[in-house]
Amino acid sequence: MPNWSQHDPGRKPEHWETLSQKNFASSPIFDVVTHRCRHPKLGHEGDFYVLESRDWVNILALTPEKQVVLVNQFRFGIGDTSWEIPGGVMEAGEEPIAAALRELKEETGYTSNQVELLGKVRPNPAIQSNTCYLALAKDAQKTEAIDWDHHEELEIKLVDIDQVYAMAFRGEIFHSLVLDALMLYQPEWEKLKARRRSPSA
Amino acid sequence: MPNWSQHDPGRKPEHWETLSQKNFASSPIFDVVTHRCRHPKLGHEGDFYVLESRDWVNILALTPEKQVVLVNQFRFGIGDTSWEIPGGVMEAGEEPIAAALRELKEETGYTSNQVELLGKVRPNPAIQSNTCYLALAKDAQKTEAIDWDHHEELEIKLVDIDQVYAMAFRGEIFHSLVLDALMLYQPEWEKLKARRRSPSA
Repeated sequence: MPNWSQHDPGRKPEHWETLSQKNFASSPIFDVVTHRCRHPKLGHEGDFYVLESRDWVNILALTPEKQVVLVNQFRFGIGDTSWEIPGGVMEAGEEPIAAALRELKEETGYTSNQVELLGKVRPNPAIQSNTCYLALAKDAQKTEAIDWDHHEELEIKLVDIDQVYAMAFRGEIFHSLVLDALMLYQPEWEKLKARRRSPSA
Repeated sequence: MPNWSQHDPGRKPEHWETLSQKNFASSPIFDVVTHRCRHPKLGHEGDFYVLESRDWVNILALTPEKQVVLVNQFRFGIGDTSWEIPGGVMEAGEEPIAAALRELKEETGYTSNQVELLGKVRPNPAIQSNTCYLALAKDAQKTEAIDWDHHEELEIKLVDIDQVYAMAFRGEIFHSLVLDALMLYQPEWEKLKARRRSPSA
């Protein structure tokens, strides 16, 4: 490949070959795996550390009054509390929507018969292999008792969705994956508001 | 505390006390640290695994024509390519805006004299201690040569910002932290578009 240059910003990047994978460290919630990879054109190799864990899910649950079910909990990563939408780790073999409804029910006691997938994102393509699914529940109702894990202790609050967006823009909601769900729902919410303003349209 | 119950969804969650921290595993880009924590009221303890790394930054760079500087690169976490805005790891002592401009220049050769902070988010409050700063550069211009790291190989493209939002909603941009930057810029972009439609307003 006489004309092949590494520094061509107009060309699609090559896909590196994985030569081997080695477990570097295992914790109960994720593994750190070393991927030994080789650039297919340049031939140079490197070790890349990847955090491998189950897929995640979160759920934007709206009541009939267009309030969002928010939960506040102590988060050990940041050593502080954080207002979020319900979510968690998917179980083996579980479908995203079933997992989202399970987390919603366990954390808040809310259920819904109108659930759909808003989208899916990668928490960090550079170092994490998993996917986070973002679900939307309409007509969420409090029908069940809460069912918290041993370490869970949540404050639950219903907040008008426009206020939830305001919290996000003020930095009071700062979990990246929660912001993603709010972003992907925004066009539908704007359409709904426009219809409410001009019901004959 | 006779009336204190763990299961009170109307009460603020307690802040756990950190009893000790122990390094569990170190890789070149992050450490996994075990936090031994105790609930201040219930007294029960647990080990919580926290991924500790430097803070991150990304930058939404807009040209005078309202195009976004996008980069596509192979990402080892997902084993695939990903369209993103420029970004990376902040250096020790570096300010967020300086880091954002450095990453923009190194990855794409673009610079800007109009940079501000859009906001900051927590990549994952549950398991990560760091912050990701989101920067906005206006009037970005290609003034420098690209300066890629040994393993970097990027495809660079200018895309109209409305098309960038369309890519996000279609799932073609899926990096959670890139979507956060797009979300936090959206109100300003909508205002700017409204002004362009009614210049006398």
